[in-house]
Amino acid sequence: MPKSSAASAAFITPNALLAHWQAHRRLTRRTIEAFPEDKFASFSVGGMRPYAELAAEMLGMAEPTVHGIVTGEWKAFSMPKAKTRADVLGQWDAATKAIDALWPKIPVARFHETMTAFGQYTMKGHDLVLYIVDNEIHHRGQGYVYLRALGIEPPPFWQRD
Amino acid sequence: MPKSSAASAAFITPNALLAHWQAHRRLTRRTIEAFPEDKFASFSVGGMRPYAELAAEMLGMAEPTVHGIVTGEWKAFSMPKAKTRADVLGQWDAATKAIDALWPKIPVARFHETMTAFGQYTMKGHDLVLYIVDNEIHHRGQGYVYLRALGIEPPPFWQRD
Repeated sequence: MPKSSAASAAFITPNALLAHWQAHRRLTRRTIEAFPEDKFASFSVGGMRPYAELAAEMLGMAEPTVHGIVTGEWKAFSMPKAKTRADVLGQWDAATKAIDALWPKIPVARFHETMTAFGQYTMKGHDLVLYIVDNEIHHRGQGYVYLRALGIEPPPFWQRD
Repeated sequence: MPKSSAASAAFITPNALLAHWQAHRRLTRRTIEAFPEDKFASFSVGGMRPYAELAAEMLGMAEPTVHGIVTGEWKAFSMPKAKTRADVLGQWDAATKAIDALWPKIPVARFHETMTAFGQYTMKGHDLVLYIVDNEIHHRGQGYVYLRALGIEPPPFWQRD
């Protein structure tokens, strides 16, 4: 074996990627909180979906994807129906705990295997995880525009604690 | 040694992360092309920066960050001044080639070392790279809202070829 340790052959390890994602999820949670209750499920720009629907999409992807990677069980994609900020934040926190509990059960080789998520998205495990992280960042960035259009300053992008 | 190979101890390898980033950069390029020339450097929503400035920020971060990780040399952060789509696309393509050429020169251990980018951002190499990829996704998502507000359909998020 070359002298490189297992960790040093990685761009990033599974543990560090989980930390990275959960840091993003804290920022996305803060962005949900930044919306006034009466705008959360109604306001958008350019005919797009309101932030409540974008957050529901994130929730529909996050825990079910990790569950699928761990177990190989995939249901059809669906989104939770909650509309109030409080309900969505409750679902968010439950997903946070579930993801933290499921993630260590993923054998590292699984991230390099090709799988079909939700019966239709076929890609490697790491691409699947990055897709849902990136989708969250993409839609959260859109939420920032909604907030600015409402005259509200979004949480700082760099703040992840 | 456990039976796991070097690659299987990674969530993702450096080569796969570069491919992931360049796939995102192709989508961001397509988003630049989607703007009408007369809106690219002028239109925004909610008092935010126009997409030309967001693209300039991405360019100011991308190649200089990879150069800094390879060489340890960091200048103060600065952004290119180009305003037309053609000029920005030319800079984008030059950065694409430069990143592809520089990336293989990064020793994998460097991604796990803590460094200070642009004289002020201190974090591990992989967090630094992910920060600029994520920043690109964040601002591109905002560009999607600008396009929708202009009545233009953005390129599909999932299309990365």
